[in-house]
Amino acid sequence: MMRIAVDAMGADNGVTPIVCGVLESLKQREFSVFLVGDENLIKPCLDSQSASATILQRIEIVHTQDFIKMTESASTANKRKDTSIYQAIGFVKNSEAQACVSAGHSGATMSLATLQIGRINGVSRPAICTCMPTITSNPSVILDAGANTDCKPEYLVDFAIMGYHYARNVLGYSAPRIGLLSNGEEDSKGNELTKQTFQLLKEYSFFRGNVEGSDIFNGSVDVIVCDGFMGNLVLKASEGVASSINTILKQEIKKSFLSILGSLLAKSAFKSLKLKIDYAEYGGAPLLGVKKPVIISHGKSNARAMECAIYQALDACDSKICETITEVFADSKISATKI
Amino acid sequence: MMRIAVDAMGADNGVTPIVCGVLESLKQREFSVFLVGDENLIKPCLDSQSASATILQRIEIVHTQDFIKMTESASTANKRKDTSIYQAIGFVKNSEAQACVSAGHSGATMSLATLQIGRINGVSRPAICTCMPTITSNPSVILDAGANTDCKPEYLVDFAIMGYHYARNVLGYSAPRIGLLSNGEEDSKGNELTKQTFQLLKEYSFFRGNVEGSDIFNGSVDVIVCDGFMGNLVLKASEGVASSINTILKQEIKKSFLSILGSLLAKSAFKSLKLKIDYAEYGGAPLLGVKKPVIISHGKSNARAMECAIYQALDACDSKICETITEVFADSKISATKI
Repeated sequence: MMRIAVDAMGADNGVTPIVCGVLESLKQREFSVFLVGDENLIKPCLDSQSASATILQRIEIVHTQDFIKMTESASTANKRKDTSIYQAIGFVKNSEAQACVSAGHSGATMSLATLQIGRINGVSRPAICTCMPTITSNPSVILDAGANTDCKPEYLVDFAIMGYHYARNVLGYSAPRIGLLSNGEEDSKGNELTKQTFQLLKEYSFFRGNVEGSDIFNGSVDVIVCDGFMGNLVLKASEGVASSINTILKQEIKKSFLSILGSLLAKSAFKSLKLKIDYAEYGGAPLLGVKKPVIISHGKSNARAMECAIYQALDACDSKICETITEVFADSKISATKI
Repeated sequence: MMRIAVDAMGADNGVTPIVCGVLESLKQREFSVFLVGDENLIKPCLDSQSASATILQRIEIVHTQDFIKMTESASTANKRKDTSIYQAIGFVKNSEAQACVSAGHSGATMSLATLQIGRINGVSRPAICTCMPTITSNPSVILDAGANTDCKPEYLVDFAIMGYHYARNVLGYSAPRIGLLSNGEEDSKGNELTKQTFQLLKEYSFFRGNVEGSDIFNGSVDVIVCDGFMGNLVLKASEGVASSINTILKQEIKKSFLSILGSLLAKSAFKSLKLKIDYAEYGGAPLLGVKKPVIISHGKSNARAMECAIYQALDACDSKICETITEVFADSKISATKI
């Protein structure tokens, strides 16, 4: 049976959403969990959820004293061996678990994943790969969503190759189309980084050229490649717009009785919209380019987001995405061109 | 009486939205217009709108043969002297008009504004300054929204100073707060460009530190500074999210009778939302850092967007924003520190 190491510590809302997400996912799929963190917090939370014995026997609490707070620096992560994330990553490293999920300090998770589990040979930099809703029925994938602030063109080419295989193996897209995030669609557009990257990417048959910020949501390509700084900006701006529209619409609806009534009648439509654009439904973001699946979840993850992040970990294992990336990068870059 | 030079050519939807926007703005405010472009297109359009004689006598059509198409390169703009934008900018250069508005080729407009009207002494690069809706009642300002793809830290400092004065003089904010767009709020966050910029900006009392993509819409600062590549990405991603939410919500509402009814009842709320997030209400974007007001409008501007862009041009003149920027940059950078 597949086993997932879940870091229970360091998330914005404590252990409860983690525990609830784990319980729900165990009801839905067949696997077991190392729940790593402070037993004095996890145990009472688990007890309060009245889960069945068959579920509970698939959870093993692994007690740790320490954890890395969001306000701390990631630089000491590799020295603090009794932190929850160090232990969770350790289970994946020694193959007692097949994948790791954490909603704790993402910098620490990335750092430990790279240092302990290891970068895949030939991959210049691991990248965070985030799914985004689109107006079509298929989500798009954006990477790097924040792991690498300053990038070289070769990094972005590696992100494109990894994103291509993620979209194919995990999302099941038969021929993923890759776009390069730029300030215009024309070939000549871009900053120094993207212009150089464009020249390298145009050798690949999956490459569809430059795309703009709006293309993330219209489904015109399946995978959007950018550096981690841009990826972070664009994702946070998008979250900001969605949440602002929500706030403004609520303010406006409150202003009249008819609008309140109307919004109640249109409730199912609003619910579907929320489902479609809610980050929680997309779970976490896999760190592509390390040897085993590591899923980085939002610090503010609710139970549903944790549940979906665990499914992502299971899907990453089932799809053998890490093995595929390892094979592709073991060949020379020239053979990667032939995909 | 103030006079505005309006480029009637090159916009995505032809001369009609330009002509209608001009007519509406002339009804509301006291000024006159040079309407520059193909008389054979402008005249019939103007005639069809049945404007009053008092309005029409404030419009002077200036016939030009040539105009720069969106698909053309901006590089020849300064040589093609019979284009509508060359002539419109010319009227501002020789002080026959006080400001220029164009929804045509933005690259050509920027290039001619800089070459013909001229950059303000001491300003490293002119920047496009765009207003964005927030959840508060005050819009925020983001610059550079696309004029300069690759920037040096000093350019961003100049953008901050110009944005500060724009927010104060034109938007009337008493003490504008400036943020630097980055991948996290902590001082240590950023890429190479923003980290260096941070060190320069922290000398200024208006500087509130790093802000994230979501801060554009939550009103936590008044002015957001970034390079033109990031600005473009973030604005287009934001437009993409807003339009995708709109599309998805419409799809979902159509699925049930109750939702359709509900959306009709909540119509006023949707209308207010649209008004608040509609780019048209914010008109165009001034190109700050040139000696006279030049407003760059979206190619797809409707009549309302053109109307608002003309108000921006009038407000820029009334507020003497170009004169203020000229004075501030005429002093050494040290005195600018004292703002």
